[in-house]
Amino acid sequence: MNQAFIYDRTINFRDTDAAGVVYFANGLALCHEAYEASLAASGINLKSFFRGEAIASPITHASIDFFKPMFCGDRVAISLTATQLSAESFQIEYQLYFNGEEERQKAIAKALTKHTCIDTSTRKRCNLSEELLQWIKLTQ
Amino acid sequence: MNQAFIYDRTINFRDTDAAGVVYFANGLALCHEAYEASLAASGINLKSFFRGEAIASPITHASIDFFKPMFCGDRVAISLTATQLSAESFQIEYQLYFNGEEERQKAIAKALTKHTCIDTSTRKRCNLSEELLQWIKLTQ
Amino acid sequence: MNQAFIYDRTINFRDTDAAGVVYFANGLALCHEAYEASLAASGINLKSFFRGEAIASPITHASIDFFKPMFCGDRVAISLTATQLSAESFQIEYQLYFNGEEERQKAIAKALTKHTCIDTSTRKRCNLSEELLQWIKLTQ
Amino acid sequence: MNQAFIYDRTINFRDTDAAGVVYFANGLALCHEAYEASLAASGINLKSFFRGEAIASPITHASIDFFKPMFCGDRVAISLTATQLSAESFQIEYQLYFNGEEERQKAIAKALTKHTCIDTSTRKRCNLSEELLQWIKLTQ
Repeated sequence: MNQAFIYDRTINFRDTDAAGVVYFANGLALCHEAYEASLAASGINLKSFFRGEAIASPITHASIDFFKPMFCGDRVAISLTATQLSAESFQIEYQLYFNGEEERQKAIAKALTKHTCIDTSTRKRCNLSEELLQWIKLTQ
Repeated sequence: MNQAFIYDRTINFRDTDAAGVVYFANGLALCHEAYEASLAASGINLKSFFRGEAIASPITHASIDFFKPMFCGDRVAISLTATQLSAESFQIEYQLYFNGEEERQKAIAKALTKHTCIDTSTRKRCNLSEELLQWIKLTQ
Repeated sequence: MNQAFIYDRTINFRDTDAAGVVYFANGLALCHEAYEASLAASGINLKSFFRGEAIASPITHASIDFFKPMFCGDRVAISLTATQLSAESFQIEYQLYFNGEEERQKAIAKALTKHTCIDTSTRKRCNLSEELLQWIKLTQ
Repeated sequence: MNQAFIYDRTINFRDTDAAGVVYFANGLALCHEAYEASLAASGINLKSFFRGEAIASPITHASIDFFKPMFCGDRVAISLTATQLSAESFQIEYQLYFNGEEERQKAIAKALTKHTCIDTSTRKRCNLSEELLQWIKLTQ
């Protein structure tokens, strides 16, 4: 999946703010959409995954660096790589490019999210599920 | 509560879009915030109410009319009146004014939401809870 | 474009709320995305269109009726039809279906937005632009 | 202002996601609201400041660490401290607590945003305005 998987997204009006560009926190929301699309592409059911029916993997850290502004109508390509950090945690690194400019141009933004798996009944940390481990491999 | 209860809200940067004013769908989000504040003021626990632990009251219809644009930093006052429509449903009418201009000036916007109560275990319609009936009276 | 143009959208985690389904105001945001995609498909430049560089077409009315809940990961197809209301205004009607269920099943939701064209320098009403008139025809 | 200024915010339904807690990117949006409220408290006009009429101060970096989940209806207190980084840039550190628990309990979250001032006509970096320099002092 890794080389092939690119999340392709047109910037919507709702993503922008009165300065005319994407509202900064929405930059991270775009990355999360890429994460969702990547999970779905590996066969994970998004509805049960994100309702946290048995295990949840909430975000404990998120960061983003912006190099260029994004405007309504811009087409953005997002790639990601997931890495296991411990038995109970993983991180995802994201790169955003203007569509068609990958590798040739500077990124629009780079972002990172860290996730810890918890058992939703006890709220205690637990090991990554088998489907998450498989997805991590696919992104590498 | 009715005369006294006004939800006072400053327009945030995140509410706006690249046209420089509040993104239209956020106008309804502002109204929903006023509904939440009104429920809380009548003693309803928002966390359990909106998780729909026993009964949920999802929105089946929403509409809004805009008369003036709202900009970042504008202070807006929202009043609301709830009405029971049937044993299982109610509606809320909202009026938005620039803060301090109530009754003297034309509204910024007027909105309406309709809600139907459902039993979250069976997904069937059910009667309004006692706490909702009390809240409706308080808004009138 | 009309029969062919369908905006295909996967429901994202960010679209949902603590009740587990799409937050009501985001239902209208989905429709606006379909409007943007439809404008882009007819050749309109979204960045300048939505910055309102000469003419803006702000929403004066929006309404939505929900018939079924939408969950994270659901694939939704949105179709739309635009109609001119006067020299200075138009409306858009939207229908949302679960992907692949069009015409065979009941809609998830139906929505409506009304827009009035204004000259952004004078803030006065003005006639629809030629590109908007052409787009309206394409949607019919 | 520093000791006195606390942005007090009730978590809204729209801030949450299907996992039942605040959507991660909205944690940063809450911090930005605190920044806006702090600017307004120091006398800055938010409408012109965020439209970037002469100078804009876009976010070049944002990060957030979450220690506890936030639910709909939770009351959150946000404090912030701004620091000048160079002639053209500054950063803001944010701390989020459950209301009334400041200093006695562990924070809910800590966040950081970095901003670079630009001249909106040339898109080149420029010095911080006098009003921003004054605001930074007030937050310390």
